[in-house]
Amino acid sequence: MEEVLAMSYVRNAWYVAGWTQELANEAPFAISILGERIVLWRSATGRLHALEDRCVHRLAPLSLGRCEGERLRCMYHGLLFDASGKVVEIPGQETIPPQARVRRYPVVERHSWIWIWMGEESKADDALIPPAVGLDHPDYILGHGHLDYAAEARLINDNLLDFSHLTFVHANSFGAGPQFAETPARITPLERGIRYERWIENSTGASSRKSDVPMDSFMTYDFLIPGILLMTGGVFPLGTAKACDFGQPDLARAVSGVTFTSQAVTPMKDRSARYFFSWGPHREHGDTSLRDTLMGIAAQAFAEDKVMIEAQQKVVDDTADVRIMPTSHDRGVTLFNRLVEKLAREESDAARRAA
Amino acid sequence: MEEVLAMSYVRNAWYVAGWTQELANEAPFAISILGERIVLWRSATGRLHALEDRCVHRLAPLSLGRCEGERLRCMYHGLLFDASGKVVEIPGQETIPPQARVRRYPVVERHSWIWIWMGEESKADDALIPPAVGLDHPDYILGHGHLDYAAEARLINDNLLDFSHLTFVHANSFGAGPQFAETPARITPLERGIRYERWIENSTGASSRKSDVPMDSFMTYDFLIPGILLMTGGVFPLGTAKACDFGQPDLARAVSGVTFTSQAVTPMKDRSARYFFSWGPHREHGDTSLRDTLMGIAAQAFAEDKVMIEAQQKVVDDTADVRIMPTSHDRGVTLFNRLVEKLAREESDAARRAA
Amino acid sequence: MEEVLAMSYVRNAWYVAGWTQELANEAPFAISILGERIVLWRSATGRLHALEDRCVHRLAPLSLGRCEGERLRCMYHGLLFDASGKVVEIPGQETIPPQARVRRYPVVERHSWIWIWMGEESKADDALIPPAVGLDHPDYILGHGHLDYAAEARLINDNLLDFSHLTFVHANSFGAGPQFAETPARITPLERGIRYERWIENSTGASSRKSDVPMDSFMTYDFLIPGILLMTGGVFPLGTAKACDFGQPDLARAVSGVTFTSQAVTPMKDRSARYFFSWGPHREHGDTSLRDTLMGIAAQAFAEDKVMIEAQQKVVDDTADVRIMPTSHDRGVTLFNRLVEKLAREESDAARRAA
Repeated sequence: MEEVLAMSYVRNAWYVAGWTQELANEAPFAISILGERIVLWRSATGRLHALEDRCVHRLAPLSLGRCEGERLRCMYHGLLFDASGKVVEIPGQETIPPQARVRRYPVVERHSWIWIWMGEESKADDALIPPAVGLDHPDYILGHGHLDYAAEARLINDNLLDFSHLTFVHANSFGAGPQFAETPARITPLERGIRYERWIENSTGASSRKSDVPMDSFMTYDFLIPGILLMTGGVFPLGTAKACDFGQPDLARAVSGVTFTSQAVTPMKDRSARYFFSWGPHREHGDTSLRDTLMGIAAQAFAEDKVMIEAQQKVVDDTADVRIMPTSHDRGVTLFNRLVEKLAREESDAARRAA
Repeated sequence: MEEVLAMSYVRNAWYVAGWTQELANEAPFAISILGERIVLWRSATGRLHALEDRCVHRLAPLSLGRCEGERLRCMYHGLLFDASGKVVEIPGQETIPPQARVRRYPVVERHSWIWIWMGEESKADDALIPPAVGLDHPDYILGHGHLDYAAEARLINDNLLDFSHLTFVHANSFGAGPQFAETPARITPLERGIRYERWIENSTGASSRKSDVPMDSFMTYDFLIPGILLMTGGVFPLGTAKACDFGQPDLARAVSGVTFTSQAVTPMKDRSARYFFSWGPHREHGDTSLRDTLMGIAAQAFAEDKVMIEAQQKVVDDTADVRIMPTSHDRGVTLFNRLVEKLAREESDAARRAA
Repeated sequence: MEEVLAMSYVRNAWYVAGWTQELANEAPFAISILGERIVLWRSATGRLHALEDRCVHRLAPLSLGRCEGERLRCMYHGLLFDASGKVVEIPGQETIPPQARVRRYPVVERHSWIWIWMGEESKADDALIPPAVGLDHPDYILGHGHLDYAAEARLINDNLLDFSHLTFVHANSFGAGPQFAETPARITPLERGIRYERWIENSTGASSRKSDVPMDSFMTYDFLIPGILLMTGGVFPLGTAKACDFGQPDLARAVSGVTFTSQAVTPMKDRSARYFFSWGPHREHGDTSLRDTLMGIAAQAFAEDKVMIEAQQKVVDDTADVRIMPTSHDRGVTLFNRLVEKLAREESDAARRAA
């Protein structure tokens, strides 16, 4: 019943490095992912590049550098790197040694996020980018933001994988009732994560979407490698839950309350993570005013999570032999973390075989 | 002549966790003692409880929890703990595994302090609580406070065990003269500590209690496991010191200057400690105004100690092979620390035999 | 081509501990050099002393002490140290054990700096003090200051040993052109360092010394153990560079722009260093107004270095296997660091033989 709290992460996955709007042209941007320092930049023509943020010469950060066309110049002693990570100019020196290169990371812009592939370059596959909903999606009116945690990404993932915490952590913000803790959600394993589904029958709703008459409301999210939550749901006429046998309803038939939230947890260094989020209503179920209301609720709720998770991290840090005792609500957490451990183990086995 | 500076502490002892007034009903309070995170709370009916501050589920701190009767609910996923540390409810789960419990600490309120027993529960004995003078004592008018140190509790104990520092550290605040450093005090071993006694003959007193004519003044304190100082004294007619052969006078015969101070040093984590103190006059020797004067002097003096001891801690931290060279004034320090080391060794021997 | 970034320092050398004006009489001053805590003080008669900053009794810092004649009293329990480091008084104790002493450091005031010898006392030789230009030098009008770095001294030395960084780091402040990076300087090994010489022909100068007609300008510095930079130069009529075969010109024949800067890098602890500097014009080439202009430029330039070097230190700290790839501009860096490593090795060999 007791398990060790493992902090493994999958490398062959797309990690969110930022919102696309954060990255101005020719303004190098530094972020650490899985403990690796990365410099991201967009050239004058708008092309996106990502390199190891460490000059081969004396380890100055390239993120203090200068964009020159598609290239980036280290502004300590002037070494010039092309977008593949190769040094193409060393001031005052004719020859360039072949080992003069830094790692290049595959990088893609999609759904308003910048995604970086942390694993083997040959395995980088755009098809593995989770289907988040971008800020420019025609159906949704979305607000967005990010929050930095002084905690392991794993602890944030665990939080998002077990919504029984809504009843206790978010009773004020989301107005979550006891059902999140009292009854199990339906959890289904997916190839790259898990799916969570819950019907709440015969309810007038929570703070974010009150209704006058009792309704059935549905929520579902996929939580996908490496730590992407994609959640939607809506409010349906009483009886819909039973009518569809507590399975997936047709969202187009929701009478109100259809929203979408995309969330991403990016491990930066040990005990630090960045949490990206968007949320807002479907155009047919709300407007910018409802979006702003939802963002206010989210700000309160995410602060509640941050207090709890950063406090949890401090206890973990003070504990010599860290063991956890999963409960029945941890089915999603356990399935997801076993998947992570399996994939991480396969990666290190493959790396060992290759070496 | 050289000794290693050892940081051992006795576990089978009552440590001060706070002033009783600090603890409102149903407001869990977190403190680390000997590196262990503890949550203390008082129920609605006023009963006091102390548990390990770490949920068995995922290590969230119970001190962020909610009091329910005599129980405490973890506010992350809702596990409910009774006052013995046993989990009595897991939301959404029928059975509760027998290992679902955290450590309970014996806890007692006495003399205005909350005392926690850090050792074996079966050995917790109220008779070992040092006879401090509480804020409600009918004979004394006391002020009180606490101060956090970025230093080992041991260094604060050492400070309190050798009053020769008064001449140098506290010349301004306490107005201490050279006699504290020039002549030895009488040091007597006690079963759980040491006793310090000093007569200062033929003096008009220090800043806190000046007199017009020369008097004999007496001070004495017991310093008791784990780090409790209980000090009193008073001013007597010239000749009293000799008349009682420099032994204990009858304090009831003091003509002025009888005060009492209770002080407690609690090791929190490595290099952090909390220092609790009260001080004030006997009702027959002063009033609230004198109490306030004394507290002002104490504030200055304790700040002087803190500057010195925290600086000392930094030097200790920067020293590879920490050795000290005790002087003749260190008799009290040495006796007390040998007692601590003996008791700590006996405890670890007993633990080894039991294992 | 790849090298490990080694952090060795020579002990048998004079390190700058401060500006002489910083040290008021009878005001003990604390500084760490090579990780050793040192207390410096000037007695009432102005004599300078330096001791290990750690009382033998309980490790309190002597820098919180009180000057008494040529002696220093620890203000914790009153032990009195003479200038040789010997304890000469222990309050309340008759005998003083022979091991009651701390280390004394040779200390010399020269060229407005306080120099401390960190190696074997018997080898301390004033002749090894580099010929810096003091603030009272009759020929120069100097401003001065210091800056603390959250970085290894070695990284600052490396910066000062390769002026190709001027083109990139200091394009704005010093107005340095491309020639620093495009062409090599002349580097000559010295017994205790290296000499850097560079002619810039046919130029109207950089921000700090513009001229109307093209001139030849010369700059040279010695960089000496343990980290002392002494730089001068000047502006000469066109053709001077060729006329003296790109060697040392006679500075007395400079038509303008003769300045002098003395700089010292002192390793304090791991990843901390203090950087001392003075700069200003020769009396025949400027006045206090030019000195102030130069100090403004220096403030900007040294801030540029600090941003780069502290960022570089963070990358180094995050790198498991720190390797650098020297370029052709690194000849001075490599020569100097090999000299440091050779001298440091000789010192540790000698220490081993002596043990």
